[in-house]
Amino acid sequence: MPAYSTNIRLKFPILALILELVTILLYALFVVYDDGKTSHHEGGHDKDNSTDHHEENPVALYPMFQDVHVMIFIGFGFLMTFLKRYGFSSVGINLLLAAFGLQWGLLLQNIWHLDDGKIKLSIEKMINADFSTATVLISFGAVLGKTSPVQLLIMTLLEITTFCLNEHLAVGVLGASDVGASMTIHAFGAYFGLAVARVLYRPGLRNGHDNEGSVYHSDLFAMIGTVYLWMFWPSFNSAIAEPGTPQLMAITNTYFSLAACALAAYAMSSLVEHKGKLDMVHIQNATLAGGVAVGTCADMNIGPFGAMVIGVTAGVISTLGFKFLSPILASNLGIQDTCGVHNLHGMPGILGGLAGILAALLGRKEHVTPGIQAAALASSLGFALVGGAITGLIMKLPFWGQPADQNCFDDSIYWEVPEDEEEAGESLTQADHSKNKAEA
Amino acid sequence: MPAYSTNIRLKFPILALILELVTILLYALFVVYDDGKTSHHEGGHDKDNSTDHHEENPVALYPMFQDVHVMIFIGFGFLMTFLKRYGFSSVGINLLLAAFGLQWGLLLQNIWHLDDGKIKLSIEKMINADFSTATVLISFGAVLGKTSPVQLLIMTLLEITTFCLNEHLAVGVLGASDVGASMTIHAFGAYFGLAVARVLYRPGLRNGHDNEGSVYHSDLFAMIGTVYLWMFWPSFNSAIAEPGTPQLMAITNTYFSLAACALAAYAMSSLVEHKGKLDMVHIQNATLAGGVAVGTCADMNIGPFGAMVIGVTAGVISTLGFKFLSPILASNLGIQDTCGVHNLHGMPGILGGLAGILAALLGRKEHVTPGIQAAALASSLGFALVGGAITGLIMKLPFWGQPADQNCFDDSIYWEVPEDEEEAGESLTQADHSKNKAEA
Amino acid sequence: MPAYSTNIRLKFPILALILELVTILLYALFVVYDDGKTSHHEGGHDKDNSTDHHEENPVALYPMFQDVHVMIFIGFGFLMTFLKRYGFSSVGINLLLAAFGLQWGLLLQNIWHLDDGKIKLSIEKMINADFSTATVLISFGAVLGKTSPVQLLIMTLLEITTFCLNEHLAVGVLGASDVGASMTIHAFGAYFGLAVARVLYRPGLRNGHDNEGSVYHSDLFAMIGTVYLWMFWPSFNSAIAEPGTPQLMAITNTYFSLAACALAAYAMSSLVEHKGKLDMVHIQNATLAGGVAVGTCADMNIGPFGAMVIGVTAGVISTLGFKFLSPILASNLGIQDTCGVHNLHGMPGILGGLAGILAALLGRKEHVTPGIQAAALASSLGFALVGGAITGLIMKLPFWGQPADQNCFDDSIYWEVPEDEEEAGESLTQADHSKNKAEA
Repeated sequence: MPAYSTNIRLKFPILALILELVTILLYALFVVYDDGKTSHHEGGHDKDNSTDHHEENPVALYPMFQDVHVMIFIGFGFLMTFLKRYGFSSVGINLLLAAFGLQWGLLLQNIWHLDDGKIKLSIEKMINADFSTATVLISFGAVLGKTSPVQLLIMTLLEITTFCLNEHLAVGVLGASDVGASMTIHAFGAYFGLAVARVLYRPGLRNGHDNEGSVYHSDLFAMIGTVYLWMFWPSFNSAIAEPGTPQLMAITNTYFSLAACALAAYAMSSLVEHKGKLDMVHIQNATLAGGVAVGTCADMNIGPFGAMVIGVTAGVISTLGFKFLSPILASNLGIQDTCGVHNLHGMPGILGGLAGILAALLGRKEHVTPGIQAAALASSLGFALVGGAITGLIMKLPFWGQPADQNCFDDSIYWEVPEDEEEAGESLTQADHSKNKAEA
Repeated sequence: MPAYSTNIRLKFPILALILELVTILLYALFVVYDDGKTSHHEGGHDKDNSTDHHEENPVALYPMFQDVHVMIFIGFGFLMTFLKRYGFSSVGINLLLAAFGLQWGLLLQNIWHLDDGKIKLSIEKMINADFSTATVLISFGAVLGKTSPVQLLIMTLLEITTFCLNEHLAVGVLGASDVGASMTIHAFGAYFGLAVARVLYRPGLRNGHDNEGSVYHSDLFAMIGTVYLWMFWPSFNSAIAEPGTPQLMAITNTYFSLAACALAAYAMSSLVEHKGKLDMVHIQNATLAGGVAVGTCADMNIGPFGAMVIGVTAGVISTLGFKFLSPILASNLGIQDTCGVHNLHGMPGILGGLAGILAALLGRKEHVTPGIQAAALASSLGFALVGGAITGLIMKLPFWGQPADQNCFDDSIYWEVPEDEEEAGESLTQADHSKNKAEA
Repeated sequence: MPAYSTNIRLKFPILALILELVTILLYALFVVYDDGKTSHHEGGHDKDNSTDHHEENPVALYPMFQDVHVMIFIGFGFLMTFLKRYGFSSVGINLLLAAFGLQWGLLLQNIWHLDDGKIKLSIEKMINADFSTATVLISFGAVLGKTSPVQLLIMTLLEITTFCLNEHLAVGVLGASDVGASMTIHAFGAYFGLAVARVLYRPGLRNGHDNEGSVYHSDLFAMIGTVYLWMFWPSFNSAIAEPGTPQLMAITNTYFSLAACALAAYAMSSLVEHKGKLDMVHIQNATLAGGVAVGTCADMNIGPFGAMVIGVTAGVISTLGFKFLSPILASNLGIQDTCGVHNLHGMPGILGGLAGILAALLGRKEHVTPGIQAAALASSLGFALVGGAITGLIMKLPFWGQPADQNCFDDSIYWEVPEDEEEAGESLTQADHSKNKAEA
C-alpha cells in the first residue's frame, strides 16, 4: 500500500464539525421533548412494546439505558484495547464514533413515524439510539488498526443509515421479532464490517504485524470491556422487551445463556491449545457469544434450559472459530478481521437468528412466524454485505488519511503518544521505532 | 512439593463440560420462569421478605441485582489483580468460578422449598445465586496463586454446597437475621478458604516468592476492584432487605459504615508504617471491612452513629490484622493467606456477627434474638472449618494439575501469556525466566 | 521551596481520626433515619423538589445515587491517574477525601433546616452529600501532586464548609436554579482550587517536572474516569430534578450536550496540533465540558438543539483553554493547574451560569429570573475565590508535610510503592531515582 499522508489536521476537524452542525440543524427542525402524549409508535426493535408503563414515569427505563450505555462506551471501548499500542484509538475513537452515531441513529430510526412532524425524545429512543451505534462498533472491530478517524466517521454515517433501513424493513415492516438484535445488530454489524475489511484487504499484512498482539496489561484492560459486556448483556437483551414476564424472561435467559457459554468457552479454549492453556483471545470474546446468540429469542418461552443450550453452542462455535476459521478467512478469502468479530458477532448472530426461527416453529412466542424470522435474517445479511461493500469502496478512496501497512495498529499516527519511562531508559528500542514511524 | 504436571488439557475441559451438562439437565428438570404466582417463600437470607412489592413489577430489583453482579465480577475479580503476574487468573478464573457457581447456587439454594416441584426464577433468586458465589471468591483469595483451575472448580462445587446447607440451617431453619451476610457469606467464605489453605500448606513458600507482590499498574487495576466493592456495598447489604424503611436503613448504615471505615483504615495504615506512608494492601482491603462488619445488622435500627462505630472498629482491626496477624498465621500456623481474606472477611465477619448479637440484645430489630444469632455465627464457622478441611483434602490429591512451588503466582502456567515489549527489548530477564518456568 | 519533612506518621492519623470522631459525635446528636414523615424541605439544589414521589418508595432514587457515586469515586478518581507516578494518590486520596467529605457535607447541607432538631437521612440527602464532595475533588485536580494528605484533609473541611454556605445562600435563600450545579459546584470548585493553587505557587516548578506527564497505560487508566464521567453525567444533572418531564429534560439535554461536545473536542484537538494528531489531555477532559456547561439549564426547556449548541461551545472553549490559556495562567499569573480544571470546570461552569441567565431571559423555566441567576453566579465565584485564598494560606503553613519541589507528582513520598519488574531489571534508572527521592 502506498504511503498516503496520515496528517488529518484539516480533513478530520472539517468533517466532524460539518457532521455535527448538520445534525444540530436537523435536531432544531425535528426533535422535541416527549410531552407525555406520544401516540405509542416507538421506533425500536419490538413493535409489541406499547404498554402504558412509561407514561407513569418517563424515566422508568433509565437504569436499563445506563447499562446499555456502559456496554457501548466501556464494554466495546475497552474490549478493543487488547492491542499493545492501540488503546488510545480503541477507547477514544470508540467514544467519538458512538457519540456521533447516537445522534445520527436517533434521527434515522424515528424518521419513519413522526408524531405531528416531530420526533419526541424518550428514554426508549435513547436506548435504541445507543443500540444503533453498536453496529458500527462491531464493524470497527473488524477494521481496527487499519483505518483513519476520517474513514471511520464516514463508515459510521453510512452504516447507521443502512442499519436503520434494514431495521425498519425487518422489524417495522415485516414484523420480525429480534428483541436482543442477534440479526439486526450483531450479524448485521459483523458482516458489514467483514465486507469493509474485504474491500480494504491489505496484502502487506498477510504475514502479520509486530504490533498486532497484546502485552500483559493491555489484555487486562480488555478484560474490563469483556466483563462489563458480560454482566450487562441481560440489560441489552431486555431493555426494550415488553414489561412484565417477557422482560423477566429476557433477563433470565441471557443470564443463564452467558453463564453456560462461559463454561463452554473456557473448556474449549483449554482443549484446542496443545498444552491445555487458556487463551485470552477466547476468554475475552467467546464468553460473550452466548449473549449474542440468545438475543433473538431472549423474550421467548424457550426455558432456562433452552437458553443454556444456546449458550454452550455459541461458546463452542465461537472458540473454534477463533482457533480454526479466522486464519482461513484471512489467508484464503482476504478477510483480515482484527478482533475476530466473525466469531463473536457473526456466527453467533446467525445462530441467534436460526434459534429464533426454531423457536417460532415451536410456537415459543405469539405472532412470531418462521418465514418472517428467516426473511429478517436474510435481509440483515443482505443489507450488511451490500452496504459494507459499497461503504468499503468509498473508504478505499486514497485521500482519507489511512495508514501505510507498516504504521497499522499504532496509536502514534493519529495521537500524541507519551514516551514511556521504561522505554526512555533503554537505548534505541520500540519507543524510537514508534516515533520514527510516527514521523512518516 | 513435587513437580506434578500442570498440563490440564483434558482434565479441565472434561470437568467443566460435565459440570455444565449436569447443571443443564437439572435445570431442564427443575427450573422454570416465575409466572407471577409464586407463593412467597423466597430462598434467600431474609425470611421476612414477603411483601407483594415484586408482584407489581418482576424486574423492580434488577438495578440492585446489577450492582451485586458488578461486585462479584468486577469487584472481586479486579481486587485480586494486585499480583504482578497473576491478573489473567484473578479476573479470568473469578469469572469462570462465578459463572459456574451462580448456576449451581441457584439450584441448591432453592431445592429446599420447591413450588409445585419447580424452582421459579426471579430477580431475587438471581441475587441470592450471585451471593452464593461470593463465598467461593472469598476463599479463592486465600489460595490465590497456589491452585489450578481444576482444583478451583472442585472447590466451587463443594463450597457452594456447604454454604447452602449452612444458610438453610442458620437462616431458613433457625431464623437468624443476616441481611448483609457477615456470618453466612463473609465469615463462612474466609474460614472455609483458610481451612483449605491450611491443608494445602506449602513449606516451600515459607520465605515468600518473587512473584508474590505487586507492580505499580497491577495495584491500580486492583483499585478498580476496591472502589467498585466500596461503592456498591450498600446494594449488597440491602438488596434482599424488606422494602421500605428496612431497605433504606441497610443502604444508609452501609454507606456511613464504609465512609467511617475508610478514614480509620487510612489513619491506621499511616500509623503502623515507620515512615508514616500508606500501604496499598491496607487501602485496597481494610477500607472495605466496614461493609462486611455492618452486614448482619445493616437493616437493624442501630442508628447512623452505630454504623459508623462499627465501620471505624472494622477498619482498625483489619489494618492491624494485615500488619501484625497475617505474618503470624503464616509462620506459626501454616496458613498462607494470599489476599489476607482473614483481615477483610474473617475478623470483620465475626465482628459483624457479634454486632448482630449485641443489636439483638438491645432489641434493634423485631423477632431477632441473641441466642439464635450466636447459633448462626457458630454454625457458619463450624460448617466453614469442617467443610473447608474436607474440601482441602480432596483438593490435595496429586492429580489436579496444581503448580509446583516455584511456579506459583504465575499466569503462564495455565494461560498463554504475551511476551511484553519492554521485556522483549531486554536480554535474559524476567520474561525468559517466566517462559522457562512455563515450559516446566 | 525548603525541604520540609514529608513524614506524616503522626500528623495524618491524628487529624483523620479526630475529624472522624467529631463527625461521629455530631451524627449521634443530629442524624436519624427518615421515618417517612419528612416535612419536604430537602436541603439540595432544587427547592422545587417537593413531590410525594419519594414517599411511596424511599429508595426510588437509589439507582441515580449509585450513578453519582460512581462518578465521584471512579470518575474523578481515575480521571486524575493520568500522571505517570501519581496514580495511587489520585484514586486513593480521592477516596479518602470523598469518604470524609460526604459525612461532613451531609451535616452542613442540612443544618439549615432541621426537622424536630434532627437531620433525617434519605437517598436524596446522600446524593447531595456526594455532590458536595465533587467541589473538593475538582479543587484537588488543581493542586494534584503538590500537596500532602494532611493539607488535603484540611482543604476538604474548609471547602465543603464554604460550599455549603454559598449553596445555602445562592439556592436556598436567593432561590436560584442550578439543577446540575454548573455554578455552585463546577465553577465554585474550580476557582476555589485555582485560588489555592495561586497561594501555593511553586516557582521551582516553572519549567515543569519530569514526573508531570503521562505514560501510555496511565492515560488508559485515566480514560476509565473520563468515560464513566461522560456516561453518567446525565444522572448528575438530573438526580435531584423534579420527577417527570423536568427530569427527562435534564437527562436528554445532558446526553445530547455531551455527544455534541465530544465531536467538537475531537475536532478542535486535531485542529490545534500542527500535525493534526489528537491529544489525550483534550480527549480526557474537554469531551466532558458539555456536561458541566449544560448543568444550570439542564431542566429548562432549551430544546435538544439548545443543549447541543451549549455542548459544542463548551467543547471548543475547553480545548482552546488547554492549548492556549493554561500555559499563560501558569507563566504569567502563577496559577499551576495540574489537571486543567479551569478548562474543564471553570470556564464551562461560567458558561453554564451565563446560559442559565440567558434561558431565564427567554423564560425557559418558570420562576427563574436572570437577576437571581446572575447573583448566584457572582456569589459562587466570590465565595470560591475568597474561601480558596484563605484556605490556601492555611495550607501554606510549613508543618503539613508538603513535598519539596523535586518530590512533587511522586506517589513514593506518601505511599509504599512497589519496585517494578522492568525497572528492577535495569541498572540505575527511574526506580532508584524515585527511591532516592523518597528517602529524602
